[in-house]
Amino acid sequence: MLTCNKDRVQNKIETFSKFGDAGHGGITRLSLSKEALAARAEFSKRMLALGVKVVTDDLANMYATFPGTEAGLPRIVMASHCDSVRNGGNYDGILGVMTAMEVVETIVTEKISHRHPITAMIWTNEEGSLYPPAMMCSGVVCGKFDKGKMLATKSSEGKTFGQALEQSGYIGDISNRLNPKDYMAMLELHIEQGPVLEAEKEQIGVVQGVVGMVNYRIRTYGQTDHAGTTPMKYRRDALLASSSALKYLHEQLDKLDSNLVYTTGEIICHPCVHTCIPDLVDFSLDARHKDPKVIKQVVEIIKNMPKELDKCEVKYEEAWARNTIEFNEKLVGLVQESAYKCGYTSKKMYSGAGHDAQFAAEMLPTTMIFVPSKDGHSHCEPEFTSLEDCYNGINVALHTVLAIDKK
Amino acid sequence: MLTCNKDRVQNKIETFSKFGDAGHGGITRLSLSKEALAARAEFSKRMLALGVKVVTDDLANMYATFPGTEAGLPRIVMASHCDSVRNGGNYDGILGVMTAMEVVETIVTEKISHRHPITAMIWTNEEGSLYPPAMMCSGVVCGKFDKGKMLATKSSEGKTFGQALEQSGYIGDISNRLNPKDYMAMLELHIEQGPVLEAEKEQIGVVQGVVGMVNYRIRTYGQTDHAGTTPMKYRRDALLASSSALKYLHEQLDKLDSNLVYTTGEIICHPCVHTCIPDLVDFSLDARHKDPKVIKQVVEIIKNMPKELDKCEVKYEEAWARNTIEFNEKLVGLVQESAYKCGYTSKKMYSGAGHDAQFAAEMLPTTMIFVPSKDGHSHCEPEFTSLEDCYNGINVALHTVLAIDKK
Repeated sequence: MLTCNKDRVQNKIETFSKFGDAGHGGITRLSLSKEALAARAEFSKRMLALGVKVVTDDLANMYATFPGTEAGLPRIVMASHCDSVRNGGNYDGILGVMTAMEVVETIVTEKISHRHPITAMIWTNEEGSLYPPAMMCSGVVCGKFDKGKMLATKSSEGKTFGQALEQSGYIGDISNRLNPKDYMAMLELHIEQGPVLEAEKEQIGVVQGVVGMVNYRIRTYGQTDHAGTTPMKYRRDALLASSSALKYLHEQLDKLDSNLVYTTGEIICHPCVHTCIPDLVDFSLDARHKDPKVIKQVVEIIKNMPKELDKCEVKYEEAWARNTIEFNEKLVGLVQESAYKCGYTSKKMYSGAGHDAQFAAEMLPTTMIFVPSKDGHSHCEPEFTSLEDCYNGINVALHTVLAIDKK
Repeated sequence: MLTCNKDRVQNKIETFSKFGDAGHGGITRLSLSKEALAARAEFSKRMLALGVKVVTDDLANMYATFPGTEAGLPRIVMASHCDSVRNGGNYDGILGVMTAMEVVETIVTEKISHRHPITAMIWTNEEGSLYPPAMMCSGVVCGKFDKGKMLATKSSEGKTFGQALEQSGYIGDISNRLNPKDYMAMLELHIEQGPVLEAEKEQIGVVQGVVGMVNYRIRTYGQTDHAGTTPMKYRRDALLASSSALKYLHEQLDKLDSNLVYTTGEIICHPCVHTCIPDLVDFSLDARHKDPKVIKQVVEIIKNMPKELDKCEVKYEEAWARNTIEFNEKLVGLVQESAYKCGYTSKKMYSGAGHDAQFAAEMLPTTMIFVPSKDGHSHCEPEFTSLEDCYNGINVALHTVLAIDKK
């Protein structure tokens, strides 16, 4: 059976791990930084060496397209990103880019006949670490974000994203953008960034979509007073009230469907001085589930929270929400068949994290492939996926692309 | 019966409220700032107008001494501070200075015969807002802090306390420092900074001492992972664990003596990002009680906390502790008698907050007088004590000083 080349995959992983090496096994490769530009140059060099032409669009998204045997057919694109968070790992995003490169390299070197053009693509600024928001350029291309506003986004050092784009030398023509007329399908391979595949001993995640979510801010309002002079009975302690609110929410939310995930990752305490009773505590509540009915139950629980806890007023506010994105059923089926054909175990699952593919999915048939993340870690230097798992995932991508090509 | 002059008291309050007026009813009068130097100049001007000589020591502490009828007797000193926190109120500290001034002014203008010299004093840098720690200069004079280290303390703008002292023009001779040979008693009037006197409708707080305290840091250790990709059963959420720890501590500590006060004022969450499960939460626990046995019970509860909560390790560390300071029993009795003589209701109580008097108490007989704080507020612009309550407190100080003079 046709496979990619494991040694070449290892060489790609080792090569790209040097661009932004942070010295502890991980990388810092912020979008359009010197390190990210080096990774882009490596992508171009390797694609050109295969005789594959590379172009960019007005947002520096890169497209390396290898033509098919029939003229005028739409392209099949594999895409991910080469930027990382600060002190991130060697797999998030870049593994999808290496997958696209290796699939093209296998098709070119093995002289695999295919009808449609096949494109390996890099999205600019997926992480949004230096220039928020995340998934900025797929957002612009897919009509979610306004280009002018994005160009004006400033890094903490005061440089705009537009200036960084200009300085990168990677700006191309707007007509090169991904679009539903010239592309028939998009595929993104990504690490799972969670522990499920590893824990359940599955080799491939067949991704059905990206779960919907709500994000709330919950605030408790008390009275700041001196820690030493205010008897307990006179206190209105906003942190005690927030602890009570958190415990209440966990108790209630734990009764809902077991696939629900919810998180309080951020808590802000005012005035946050050890000698002062807090008067305001503000915390986040992020809740995700593929079924909008479950998300509705979460919202009901938040809305029915006690209005007062520990003599403090409790308020809530929706910060944002997004609906579940369903990937293209036919493509999901082709990923599953390819995994089966390659002899890998697989599991259908939803992505809990956001990806460029979720924006692309609203424009053209799209799906994703997940490979296991060791201990579920991601966005940190210990992030790891074994060579075997990378190789397996790339083989699934290869066979999925060739199956799409036959449609 | 002899009283101070209420109109003069009002004039003093109005005058000093202008030095550092922050525009919303309160003041910002950081130690040795332009505003604090203006308050010092007003103190000198008013004392000199009464024929009272003012000297300073090597830390710019100010001493205005009116001689008594007998030579060679030790002095009676009334002291507090004229610096404030940022956006503080018009009573914390400065009311004790105005009390000292008004008592001297009453004795001078009413030609009250007294044997001992009577000193009105200003301590430098009680708040420590610009140059920490709090109670810096009483700490040096009373042998608690090292002068060299204190002089080297830097403000956030990089100026040392030593430089600020030099620039103030208020440095005097070290031999002028408060000392147990030349002083027989120290008295400090202060606002309560808590709600007890107001709530219990008492006019005067007869302060018996300053409560002992312990301050702990409590930390919970989990695992940071992605909020969207990590099923609930795989999580080790340090913030959930800290909420459980806080609720546990409240439940246990609430069983102890009802005069115990304890506070978690500070909480630090890492990484504090709404999409990340927290891996480390660190919070303070400040507990105060006059009885060391109760403090010991608090420490036992902390030490016997569960070592693991919500699959997270729980650790604790003592940050600092101080013992209860008992004020001089005879002086406490004289304050109580004076309140009674003046016809005011009074309540014996301990101070939950720290004051310069607690350091002085380790060097010479010392006590304090509290007056009510509206709604218990302090260290904020709404801090308020009525003119009537100020007047009452000053009358108690006046009669206490005259009673000490008779001993």
